[in-house]
Amino acid sequence: MTYCLALRVSSGIVFASDSRTNAGVDYVFTYSKMHVFSRPGERLFVLLTAGNLGTTQAVVNRIQRDFEDADAPASLNTVQYLFEAAHYVGKISGEVQDEHAEALRKAKVNPEASFIIGGQILGQPHDIYQIYPQGNYITASPSTPYLQIGETKYGKPILDRIVEPATSLADAARCALVSLDSTMRANISVGPPLELGVYNKDALDLARHTNLTLNSPLYRSLQKQWNEGLKRAFKRLPRFDWEQST
Amino acid sequence: MTYCLALRVSSGIVFASDSRTNAGVDYVFTYSKMHVFSRPGERLFVLLTAGNLGTTQAVVNRIQRDFEDADAPASLNTVQYLFEAAHYVGKISGEVQDEHAEALRKAKVNPEASFIIGGQILGQPHDIYQIYPQGNYITASPSTPYLQIGETKYGKPILDRIVEPATSLADAARCALVSLDSTMRANISVGPPLELGVYNKDALDLARHTNLTLNSPLYRSLQKQWNEGLKRAFKRLPRFDWEQST
Repeated sequence: MTYCLALRVSSGIVFASDSRTNAGVDYVFTYSKMHVFSRPGERLFVLLTAGNLGTTQAVVNRIQRDFEDADAPASLNTVQYLFEAAHYVGKISGEVQDEHAEALRKAKVNPEASFIIGGQILGQPHDIYQIYPQGNYITASPSTPYLQIGETKYGKPILDRIVEPATSLADAARCALVSLDSTMRANISVGPPLELGVYNKDALDLARHTNLTLNSPLYRSLQKQWNEGLKRAFKRLPRFDWEQST
Repeated sequence: MTYCLALRVSSGIVFASDSRTNAGVDYVFTYSKMHVFSRPGERLFVLLTAGNLGTTQAVVNRIQRDFEDADAPASLNTVQYLFEAAHYVGKISGEVQDEHAEALRKAKVNPEASFIIGGQILGQPHDIYQIYPQGNYITASPSTPYLQIGETKYGKPILDRIVEPATSLADAARCALVSLDSTMRANISVGPPLELGVYNKDALDLARHTNLTLNSPLYRSLQKQWNEGLKRAFKRLPRFDWEQST
């Protein structure tokens, strides 16, 4: 399993992902699920991937090949709007899945994959899109300014409580890490290191792209503080009328 | 959908459930999902239900009929261990599902249901069991002293952080309400009123069984305090090194 998310706030976008890949519990790898395609000053895309690893790797390879080919009929260089980038990723994903569908069906392996693509094209607003396995796609909204793929449920409540368009990029990044941390505690198939990308609106390049291991001082401190903060909040909850007033 | 949970701590058991039932978004009801079977001083069972409403109601009706029938060959009166109660519920659930399986299959309706049964029989320890749709069952453990059925993921992280065998019954009840509250915020198919049952070990009767509407002062206060406490905890999280030190 996987957990990736993107948060779109007024001042930019935060991308975050785990990096555990597994095909059964005894076949576990660490793979990056965050891929950056950048023409500094012109356009910046970050792609997050979840699902069948064969599918996601083939999709990323094809996107990369098109991106480096000035003559490619369609690529992340040629799209003029971010929704066209989502459409392009969905189309490639469908082609890759179709190619192996018959063989994978026989082996009862699911070829499906999901993606989030976000970023900015010069002259356009920054935005994020989620691409379903069927190739269709949606964007976020001001009331739900985030998108998630993979194991999404454990980490959703904190996003709903904290993130809104006015949230700062740093707070959005902290919230993404808390959301990932809650998910990793609940589901062993989501695992470290965590990857974090921070995009400042109109920068047209990725400001920060870092890996956080379980031992990184920031992540350890964040885990500890959050756990203590939750316990403090819990202790302050109201008493029932049937409790002894001690 | 539904969310029910039971928490087994050293001093007793907390049962909690939502009460929303739906067959599509335009066909929403409020039904209790918490059923109490009690012979005060002898035995106490609480049954929580999730899944197909036809199945769960038929199962509850049959258990009730057997419970009132002194000559019933098997019932919650005749079982000598709590695991036998789980086995009995699983058997009835299988029979009810089988009876309607063919008709429901044609209509593409899922007949499955899940249950949690907990309580105590005189001379035995208090315990909780989860019964799968296939009729098999598991109990909780000291490191995971709770069981959940229905929409379980949104409300799991807080249980993992707070509940352990030494947790007081009141704290376990508060934690169950927070877990339900997080789930209701994330999934509209889980809804109020909330039902809460509190069993004191060795009491052999249910100490408290209450309904909490969204307007009950305790629930409103708990929601508000928890939301504020989380925001306070979030504000105290460590800063990134790239943040301005303001």
